[in-house]
Amino acid sequence: MSEKYVYFFGQGQAEGNRDMRDTLGGKGANLAEMAGIGLPVPPGFTVSTEVCSLFFEAGNQLPAGVNAEILEHLDRLEKTAQQTFGDQDNPLLVSVRSGAKFSMPGMMDTVLNLGLNDKAVEGLARKSGDRRFALDCYRRLIQMFSDVVLEISKRKFEAILQAKKAEKNVEIDSDISEAMLEEILAEFKATVKQESGQEFPQDVKEQLFMAVSSVFSSWYNPRAKTYRRINHIPDDLGTAVNVQLMVFGNYGEESATGVGFTRNPATGALELFGEYLRNAQGEDVVAGIRTPSPFSELATDMPEVYQELKDTTTRLEKHYGDCQDFEFTVQEKKLYMLQTRSGKRTGQAAVKIAVDLVKEGVTTKEKALMLVEPGALDQLLHPVFDIEEKAQALGLAKGLAASPGAAAGQVVFTADEAVAWKQEGRQVVLVRDETSPDDIHGMSAPQGILTATGGMTSHAAVVGRQMGKPAVVGCGVLVINEEGKYFQAGDHRVTEGDSISIDGATGEVLLGEIKTRPSEIIQVVRGVIKPEDSPLFQDFTELLSWADEVRRMSVRANADTPEDAEMAFAFGAEGIGLARTEHMFFERDRLPIIKEMILSETEEARRRFLDKLLPFQRKDFYELFKAMRGNPVTIRTLDPPLHEFLPKKEDLMVEIAALKASGSSELDKLQGLEKLLERVKALSEFNPMLGHRGCRLGVTFPEIIEMQARAIFEAACQLAKEGQKVLPEIMVPLIGGVRELANQKEIIVRIAEELIQEYAVELNYTVGTMIEIPRAAITAAEVAKEADFFSFGTNDLTQTTFGISRDDGAGFINHYLTHGLWPDDPFMTVDIDGVGELMKWAVEKGRTTRPDLKVGICGVHGGDPRSIYFCHKIGLNYVSCSAYQIPIARLAAAQVTLQEKI
Amino acid sequence: MSEKYVYFFGQGQAEGNRDMRDTLGGKGANLAEMAGIGLPVPPGFTVSTEVCSLFFEAGNQLPAGVNAEILEHLDRLEKTAQQTFGDQDNPLLVSVRSGAKFSMPGMMDTVLNLGLNDKAVEGLARKSGDRRFALDCYRRLIQMFSDVVLEISKRKFEAILQAKKAEKNVEIDSDISEAMLEEILAEFKATVKQESGQEFPQDVKEQLFMAVSSVFSSWYNPRAKTYRRINHIPDDLGTAVNVQLMVFGNYGEESATGVGFTRNPATGALELFGEYLRNAQGEDVVAGIRTPSPFSELATDMPEVYQELKDTTTRLEKHYGDCQDFEFTVQEKKLYMLQTRSGKRTGQAAVKIAVDLVKEGVTTKEKALMLVEPGALDQLLHPVFDIEEKAQALGLAKGLAASPGAAAGQVVFTADEAVAWKQEGRQVVLVRDETSPDDIHGMSAPQGILTATGGMTSHAAVVGRQMGKPAVVGCGVLVINEEGKYFQAGDHRVTEGDSISIDGATGEVLLGEIKTRPSEIIQVVRGVIKPEDSPLFQDFTELLSWADEVRRMSVRANADTPEDAEMAFAFGAEGIGLARTEHMFFERDRLPIIKEMILSETEEARRRFLDKLLPFQRKDFYELFKAMRGNPVTIRTLDPPLHEFLPKKEDLMVEIAALKASGSSELDKLQGLEKLLERVKALSEFNPMLGHRGCRLGVTFPEIIEMQARAIFEAACQLAKEGQKVLPEIMVPLIGGVRELANQKEIIVRIAEELIQEYAVELNYTVGTMIEIPRAAITAAEVAKEADFFSFGTNDLTQTTFGISRDDGAGFINHYLTHGLWPDDPFMTVDIDGVGELMKWAVEKGRTTRPDLKVGICGVHGGDPRSIYFCHKIGLNYVSCSAYQIPIARLAAAQVTLQEKI
Repeated sequence: MSEKYVYFFGQGQAEGNRDMRDTLGGKGANLAEMAGIGLPVPPGFTVSTEVCSLFFEAGNQLPAGVNAEILEHLDRLEKTAQQTFGDQDNPLLVSVRSGAKFSMPGMMDTVLNLGLNDKAVEGLARKSGDRRFALDCYRRLIQMFSDVVLEISKRKFEAILQAKKAEKNVEIDSDISEAMLEEILAEFKATVKQESGQEFPQDVKEQLFMAVSSVFSSWYNPRAKTYRRINHIPDDLGTAVNVQLMVFGNYGEESATGVGFTRNPATGALELFGEYLRNAQGEDVVAGIRTPSPFSELATDMPEVYQELKDTTTRLEKHYGDCQDFEFTVQEKKLYMLQTRSGKRTGQAAVKIAVDLVKEGVTTKEKALMLVEPGALDQLLHPVFDIEEKAQALGLAKGLAASPGAAAGQVVFTADEAVAWKQEGRQVVLVRDETSPDDIHGMSAPQGILTATGGMTSHAAVVGRQMGKPAVVGCGVLVINEEGKYFQAGDHRVTEGDSISIDGATGEVLLGEIKTRPSEIIQVVRGVIKPEDSPLFQDFTELLSWADEVRRMSVRANADTPEDAEMAFAFGAEGIGLARTEHMFFERDRLPIIKEMILSETEEARRRFLDKLLPFQRKDFYELFKAMRGNPVTIRTLDPPLHEFLPKKEDLMVEIAALKASGSSELDKLQGLEKLLERVKALSEFNPMLGHRGCRLGVTFPEIIEMQARAIFEAACQLAKEGQKVLPEIMVPLIGGVRELANQKEIIVRIAEELIQEYAVELNYTVGTMIEIPRAAITAAEVAKEADFFSFGTNDLTQTTFGISRDDGAGFINHYLTHGLWPDDPFMTVDIDGVGELMKWAVEKGRTTRPDLKVGICGVHGGDPRSIYFCHKIGLNYVSCSAYQIPIARLAAAQVTLQEKI
Repeated sequence: MSEKYVYFFGQGQAEGNRDMRDTLGGKGANLAEMAGIGLPVPPGFTVSTEVCSLFFEAGNQLPAGVNAEILEHLDRLEKTAQQTFGDQDNPLLVSVRSGAKFSMPGMMDTVLNLGLNDKAVEGLARKSGDRRFALDCYRRLIQMFSDVVLEISKRKFEAILQAKKAEKNVEIDSDISEAMLEEILAEFKATVKQESGQEFPQDVKEQLFMAVSSVFSSWYNPRAKTYRRINHIPDDLGTAVNVQLMVFGNYGEESATGVGFTRNPATGALELFGEYLRNAQGEDVVAGIRTPSPFSELATDMPEVYQELKDTTTRLEKHYGDCQDFEFTVQEKKLYMLQTRSGKRTGQAAVKIAVDLVKEGVTTKEKALMLVEPGALDQLLHPVFDIEEKAQALGLAKGLAASPGAAAGQVVFTADEAVAWKQEGRQVVLVRDETSPDDIHGMSAPQGILTATGGMTSHAAVVGRQMGKPAVVGCGVLVINEEGKYFQAGDHRVTEGDSISIDGATGEVLLGEIKTRPSEIIQVVRGVIKPEDSPLFQDFTELLSWADEVRRMSVRANADTPEDAEMAFAFGAEGIGLARTEHMFFERDRLPIIKEMILSETEEARRRFLDKLLPFQRKDFYELFKAMRGNPVTIRTLDPPLHEFLPKKEDLMVEIAALKASGSSELDKLQGLEKLLERVKALSEFNPMLGHRGCRLGVTFPEIIEMQARAIFEAACQLAKEGQKVLPEIMVPLIGGVRELANQKEIIVRIAEELIQEYAVELNYTVGTMIEIPRAAITAAEVAKEADFFSFGTNDLTQTTFGISRDDGAGFINHYLTHGLWPDDPFMTVDIDGVGELMKWAVEKGRTTRPDLKVGICGVHGGDPRSIYFCHKIGLNYVSCSAYQIPIARLAAAQVTLQEKI
């Protein structure tokens, strides 16, 4: 107990400062900082976060040494304030507030007006000359203290208050008379006695220690724990406790309390933005009994106070270099600052504020980059609902917010219908139990996608995000009847053609078509708005250009088509990190050929159909290379199990059974179906994710890889011949060890060299591999002998490292997340302790063999800011993500580079 | 080139010895050893295995320095033999033979009679006084040299020989006259010229260098490569080349050549066992033109030679401490030893020989333990076919030899029929496309199991081995028509009730019922034969008792029932390492309750059915504990996905479709089926292996684990109360990290403590976890905080580390093995570089947290000798395997302990 646990602040001095958030919490550090630079902060002291740990270690009690230190500081506070705690003439009153390192608004406990008892309340009455005010403060104290410290239900006190008001025909609190307050106080104290078995504590020091202990205890209350889990705040940080001289916003009409922002948190515009309440304490604003007034009125009501507030908060913003969210109290025209912190803002505001602060000289580019949460950039790209219309719409259900954005349209139940209706000019929302690769052709048609099953990384969710298409998934309350062409959401039946709206940022499903518009940024990218007409776009572009100046990792796109590639390029992609060749196979004109190829039973027959596919693939690659203008394009060879291209086994079985039972005489059809079923059965697998796919296809059917290599290099050589720069990087999927890679590489290099000679061109290319199987990571030193590059396929790597299929885990993954078995969804954010450990190992071992090994990532995690930070830290060269995530990745990559510098 | 590359041996001296197998190869080392101890070995020299590497590095040619060293040794050989290489009066002839560290019989090349040319052949004629003999040697040389060195098809020479014999009406080779040989030689030489474009080399040194080079080259011939792959011999060992003075078994009727064993390799009986051919060279025996005579005749024909052979080989056996397999040549009554090595033997012989050698004082117990290949013990446990009957049966097909043993019976196609027929006293073979846990109840009924699909680790294979039941799986040629109750194997149709026989040691499927009998050991274990009447059983038991004296790891059994446990105990299990609780669920009287439990939609309903299951499970555990008599029993909590207990989705869909199409009026039935289908669909998973199973069930449905814990501890407490020792170890499956374990452990410990108090007993128990998910291994340091023990579930760990499902991989796994992409099937032998690395990591990290952490293995690898060696090396405390593998494990664990001592 030799350390310091309590820190004083007030009157231009402070033992702490803003850099001590670990020790003092956010609120305490900022109170100290404000006091230190001479702002009007009521004096007080902060009990440090370390005491929080000691408190729990000691079995939920304050260590004796800490008690003594608190009393020393209380003594100093009495001297500073020239008031005495519990005094019957000049009583010191304090507030007791929580304050953790990271803001957890409303999650923990607060007690105001502490220090009143039956005697001190009369002292306050005498000193203030307003006995009604003093009694009201006492009433408030008993109410809050009982709720927070004694755990007596708030409702009991509310009931007494309401009953008394009804009895006396009083409507608003300020009309409660002194006499009524005395009656209320008597009943409150009786209630305390009855509920807790003891009198309301008259010893003010006991009040103080009980309140401090309660605030520490509240660190582990259920809502605080949940909040921390959701916001990735570690449990072991603990909270600090701030004990501060009370100032009274309820001291009469010249007093007030309020909250505000230095800039508009929705738009980012430079304007003092906030609300206040006259003659009130903070909890009155929260309680919502009275409607606060906007600052514009404060300027009229109390012009000096308004000016002082403006000067003070402007000074604060400059001092902190960021838009501030502040709390203040005015007592008899004197302004007191009670809190300041970085203001939460929308993505749009974040961008504007960051750029403006630099332009205004308030901060540097590098610091400004740290002010924008990368994920918030997403908000700038997705269509948005009209907020007012949405508020009036009927909510049907809520699912997982899988792909942000607003979508509205008529309900359809199949991909084919989505395409057909769209062609007729209708806007549709595709509603399905789940989507599968079979639906791909119909997934770009609808405005949005809604599924009843599947998690945040289900097919619909992944494809939705990939396409920048709003999606709500796993909406379990929906019962979909595809045959009957309707779905049921509780009592509501929604039939094909009915309109619904889905909000992919919140998971809401609403009845009716709520108006949406594409975001401004997208309109600029699409050429609908000119860049010079969009200040937002200009800010967006400027901010990202600063990010590009600092980041070490490059950013690539996962893109399968020239359209994807063009979009990615517009968002700043420096190459393609993943082009999935199989997506090309699902197109209408190709699928029949693929099917025939798969159903072939000899290599010769397969080659015949592969020859037909070759021109299609060559054209795909030609266009993809062209769109990327000489930037590297990483092409993954065929990956999915072949039966994904065939009809489902059970569908065929049902069709056959029905045909037989109906006594149909269509023998040819039956035989055809039976033959097809036989082949489908032969190819079907219990666990397709762990089956005959990835390079295992290429190893067993080398003719498929030959065709793909030929298509790639014919396209590349053709472009080279035309004088365009091309840089193909061929990537082999799902290898478990070096021999598979060597096997596939031999084929690829042979065909490449043949064609380069045939076309007589110069062409650089590389051959690398996905690292998406634990064994590939473990044996990376060997694998690197054959690989020019590694690209982490973190979707599969997460699946195999956890032994969990993302398609099947929805049920228990949700349970794991809500019950704290996982801190995060590992399919969204790289699991650093498990998957991350394998990644680190693979990078290190791979580079022992090949020091210049290029390493990237192309799983969904490539667009997740925290995963991007991790990728940087373990030395990756690039991240690859969907076009819409590229701005996020550019910013996140810059932030982690800057963090490293600090 | 400062090292020594060539080693001389002969006349009681040798530069090498038997410990130099790495350098000299097995044959060379043993020739040196025999020469060194004064046995009659024709002198010669060995070109070391290191030269093999140099040869390939130099681009398939002998380095000049080696050539010189060979010539020096040739010179020494000439002096020793008092003959001159290529001399026209007294020519030196040599044999050139391969000889790698590990025996690869017949895989590489040999040239005999080298050193003859047109002049030297006359010298040999003169010296031997038998021109016909000399010409015949020359003829043999040209024939072998052309085949091996010049790569001219053997058939061309055979054709000439046959044509000449036909022309002259000669039937056997020894009747070919001198004149005929001259004609043949002329034609042979013409053929060489024609085929190779050059004359047969007359320079004998050129002959020698060409032959040595050819032997080295043959290291990489396809059959040698395949042999090494199958026998796990590394490619980089290389072969040595032995150049040795020719002795002639074809020098007349007083000469002979032969091969033999010092003991009977089938039974192990102490008798000189072998065959010889008079007036012949080694290749005549191989060619099979003449039938060799047994040694009994040699004793009569050449009694002195026989006696000398007996004395020499007895000395050899004593010298080597093991039964020897030897080659010899007699030239004019003089015996020459050409080869000795450990003789390959059956499992039965191996056991008898090892025990006899110790009894005879020839070797020590520890050395004897190293003489038995652990896997060979398997042969002693499985039923055997009558060999002669089998030879006459019609072969239908060949599949994978999944579980050794012989089985014969009438064909049935369902598990239910297997049970029913068996009850009627019939012996059956269960034939299915594949088996599943649904078939469990019917898998102990048949004599053997035959499946059309699945690999060596498919359900049928695993359960077959587990039950010690012969199984042939993955027999793709079979087309099974379950409905029609027949299967087609090529042209043969086998109908229900027809008899077939399957040999699980070879994969053969034969028509008709070939007689089998249980092995002698099993008959003793079952009490049919008394131990004192079975010398084999006595030897078996004695050998294993020696193993128990030396091994460090303990050996446990995977056993689910009291019967399994009793059998395991009889085979020496020291506890149960894996008791699968779900196997208990599949029993007839329980399955309906399980189904109801799963179909329940509320926890309350589930608990109702779980209460009904409790007494069953309690009884199971009571009996299991009792059978293990106080030894530790590791019980795994529920593991498989719940839908395994329900009917298949597609079967229900087909049933419903058929019912609908038939216009059936059974609406109730239809509705019931549809409701069931709905639930089955809700539970069905795309990748059940990666789905809702293992501890994920226990985490989401804690009431299931509560019931299981209650059943276990009620049984254990009851026994404790009855005064019996019990040691339950509860094992949580499929954890990915410490939190899942902590979650399950909390439930288990809570219930255990409750019951221990309730029963007022003392009871030791532990709670540990399977390590079968890569993430569990990676985070082992954390996991060990909650785990009393780890048990590697290498089946799942291999699946997830490779990202390959053993159920689905059959197709490409076979391709991988035959094409050298994998050295071994990782589902049979631990993949040391990948899975093994994770295991090593988990053991090390786990013990950093908990130094006394007990670690075992309970996957199929626990019964595989090479995997057991690995487990010992990384510090495991025990291995657990099926009852029938326990002898193997005891021996393998002893061997690796002994290896460590060396």
